Amino acid sequence: MLMSQLRAESGVPIATIKYYLREGLLPPGEQTSATRAEYNASHVRRLRLIRALVDVGRLPLATIRKIIEAVEDEQTSVHQMLGAAHYALSLPVEPAPDDPDWQEAGALVDEMITEMGWVIYPDAPTRAELAQTLVSLKRLGMPATRDDLLPYARVADELAREHDLRKVRLDGPRDTAVETLVIMQVLYGRALDALRRLAQEAESARIAGKVQAATGPPPEGD
Amino acid sequence: MLMSQLRAESGVPIATIKYYLREGLLPPGEQTSATRAEYNASHVRRLRLIRALVDVGRLPLATIRKIIEAVEDEQTSVHQMLGAAHYALSLPVEPAPDDPDWQEAGALVDEMITEMGWVIYPDAPTRAELAQTLVSLKRLGMPATRDDLLPYARVADELAREHDLRKVRLDGPRDTAVETLVIMQVLYGRALDALRRLAQEAESARIAGKVQAATGPPPEGD
Repeated sequence: MLMSQLRAESGVPIATIKYYLREGLLPPGEQTSATRAEYNASHVRRLRLIRALVDVGRLPLATIRKIIEAVEDEQTSVHQMLGAAHYALSLPVEPAPDDPDWQEAGALVDEMITEMGWVIYPDAPTRAELAQTLVSLKRLGMPATRDDLLPYARVADELAREHDLRKVRLDGPRDTAVETLVIMQVLYGRALDALRRLAQEAESARIAGKVQAATGPPPEGD
Repeated sequence: MLMSQLRAESGVPIATIKYYLREGLLPPGEQTSATRAEYNASHVRRLRLIRALVDVGRLPLATIRKIIEAVEDEQTSVHQMLGAAHYALSLPVEPAPDDPDWQEAGALVDEMITEMGWVIYPDAPTRAELAQTLVSLKRLGMPATRDDLLPYARVADELAREHDLRKVRLDGPRDTAVETLVIMQVLYGRALDALRRLAQEAESARIAGKVQAATGPPPEGD
């Protein structure tokens, strides 16, 4: 297909396509004359991947470049390639290895990973990201012990095994695997967050109802 | 306590405390002379709440003002006050009521809420937020049916009933209830997101191991 068809097929404006070509994020088409190049389904897939990383993952271009390199390097296994995308979605964190709160949080993260039987790279940025959240919880006086966190780890494990990964197209083209991983991780994460707030509203109403039942009729206008 | 002690107790710089006083977010202290005012534990609590809304909730000042109004209006029930904070944490969304994708997503949200037996205000912004996520999933070609979403709703329900709301200090001062709700919702949400990525990495490794076992030894350098 020509550039104009690639634009129609992908929905990405021509100026943006040309920018991705210049930046090397999109491989060049097959030159058929001095002014014409042919593009194919792999270019459509690559554009879909880049848009998912930009629009859904909100990732910076430098990070997207690294993911594309992992996608293009066929020596990289699918698991490693997905890892590159996964790690790119981690929030940037500056660990403070000398801080006792950080040491405690890091040990708790290790303990949970062991307890769950998870195989995780030692330098996965997700470890530091979780440790930072535990440090924040502790400093704000909120519960953040092993027993507080483990139920959330169990739920994450159940979702990963039974649902999350099944939404990723692992057996198709490499572009599609990374694209569907990022969309699944970010958008199902957003859905889960909204669902938690809905469930919390419902539970808060249930508790309020119980309190009212125990203390008498609701005040007027409630 | 004097302003200097309030600063020491809360960790909030004096310039910031004065700004909150001017903006009416922090109630004035008791004036003991022309240049001196006495502050108490309720001022420390209010500063903790404001910092939680700013630092953890990342909420704009106009939104924080509305939450503070709900906290200060004793006519507002605790459930309504928590609702104000909950709704403030919703991502802003512009619904497109004439769009068929939006109509379908809205109907699916209603159906799930009914199926879960949740009591949710009809104009809760969380509904539109979830609908928007479903529209995005569908447009990106990802699964977003009732059966795809319900497992996530069940998990959210279990967490809300058994864990989330128990971390909120509902029986203390109103400031503290809102503060602990926001910290719980945001930071446990962040922890859950990191835990999902850890569980997905572990599950991806498990699947990769299975594929390798079925297709022969791993390639060198893997």
